[in-house]
Amino acid sequence: MKKFMYFSAMNFSSKLVEKAVDEIAQLPGIGKRSALRLVLHLLGQPKKQTHQLSEALVNLVDNVHYCKNCHNISDTDLCEICTNPKRDPELICVVEDIRDVMAIENTAQFQGHYHVLGGKISPIDGIGPQNLNIDSLVEKVKNQTIKELIFATSSTIEGDTTNFYIFKQLEGLDVTITTIARGIAVGDELEYADEITLGRSIINRIPFETSLKR
Amino acid sequence: MKKFMYFSAMNFSSKLVEKAVDEIAQLPGIGKRSALRLVLHLLGQPKKQTHQLSEALVNLVDNVHYCKNCHNISDTDLCEICTNPKRDPELICVVEDIRDVMAIENTAQFQGHYHVLGGKISPIDGIGPQNLNIDSLVEKVKNQTIKELIFATSSTIEGDTTNFYIFKQLEGLDVTITTIARGIAVGDELEYADEITLGRSIINRIPFETSLKR
Repeated sequence: MKKFMYFSAMNFSSKLVEKAVDEIAQLPGIGKRSALRLVLHLLGQPKKQTHQLSEALVNLVDNVHYCKNCHNISDTDLCEICTNPKRDPELICVVEDIRDVMAIENTAQFQGHYHVLGGKISPIDGIGPQNLNIDSLVEKVKNQTIKELIFATSSTIEGDTTNFYIFKQLEGLDVTITTIARGIAVGDELEYADEITLGRSIINRIPFETSLKR
Repeated sequence: MKKFMYFSAMNFSSKLVEKAVDEIAQLPGIGKRSALRLVLHLLGQPKKQTHQLSEALVNLVDNVHYCKNCHNISDTDLCEICTNPKRDPELICVVEDIRDVMAIENTAQFQGHYHVLGGKISPIDGIGPQNLNIDSLVEKVKNQTIKELIFATSSTIEGDTTNFYIFKQLEGLDVTITTIARGIAVGDELEYADEITLGRSIINRIPFETSLKR
């Protein structure tokens, strides 16, 4: 009869290997098999590489700061974007996490500040408004001169919910609220676009002259 | 015009994050994007988890031993298998790495010792016989009483080459050399088997009575 290899029965022959595999397998998207592959790889490399990796990880969690103004990750109390005098502090782009900041910075099209929420409202994951940096955003709009907030959260139900929640919190305050354009990606063929995106792109059409300036 | 996001242009806004991403991205199968995802995950977890991970990795590379007899990974000079008096030291199973030892141990069908080569001869990867634990295997067969060597390397050109190289080194020595059976996997349908495997399984057919005993 065929014997199936159950993972619980894995005999690592070394407590050190077992411990390292267990720790690595706690990372998202890495199972025990991949963890063992990584461990065997590290054992085949110079020790220095693993020492540097460990040091970088410990340094990261022990010394990382979050910008006091925008909650972006930073090595200092205020991040490079918030301390840059060339950037407009009255224009704030609201994003979910630092990957979004990086993506927008790479376009070189935005010269305002950011506000990093730290996620989006998602009851299924147990994330409510109180888990996000929403209060500090509302305070900022109330107490500072903010001309415009640009919502740049992901185009999902959770992203839309988050936007709507913030929108309601800011009702009656003197601030323009916009959202980044959703539409057909540059270079895409119309026939492959989904109907909702295509529909929105028709409803939110812009003057042709405007499109020429981009 | 569409702006493509080149990865080299990634602005991490934190040297600590950048360093951690760079170190993680050196692991096989993990790119910079996945590395950043892991970094953001670790930042969202209690610091203790990252400290334990780092400690486990450093402990691993600093303190791991290889069994002096079979080159299996071990916490002591001789591994648990080589020191187990119930196992037969005259029967040696030759494998590529410790994952193979674990796989065979999980079958509970083998009660001999192992010899871990540390890979297979693969000129394309720059791995020659001198990079593997072949000399120590030849010495073992010359100087100790070894009845049988079982080749259990992978069924590839590299695996076959490695087997043949060792076979030639041992020519004229009094040792039985066998290889694990290649054939149709238990539970598999004949029609989906490749011709080479099916052909070998016919050439290497065994008495029906023998198959009843398994």
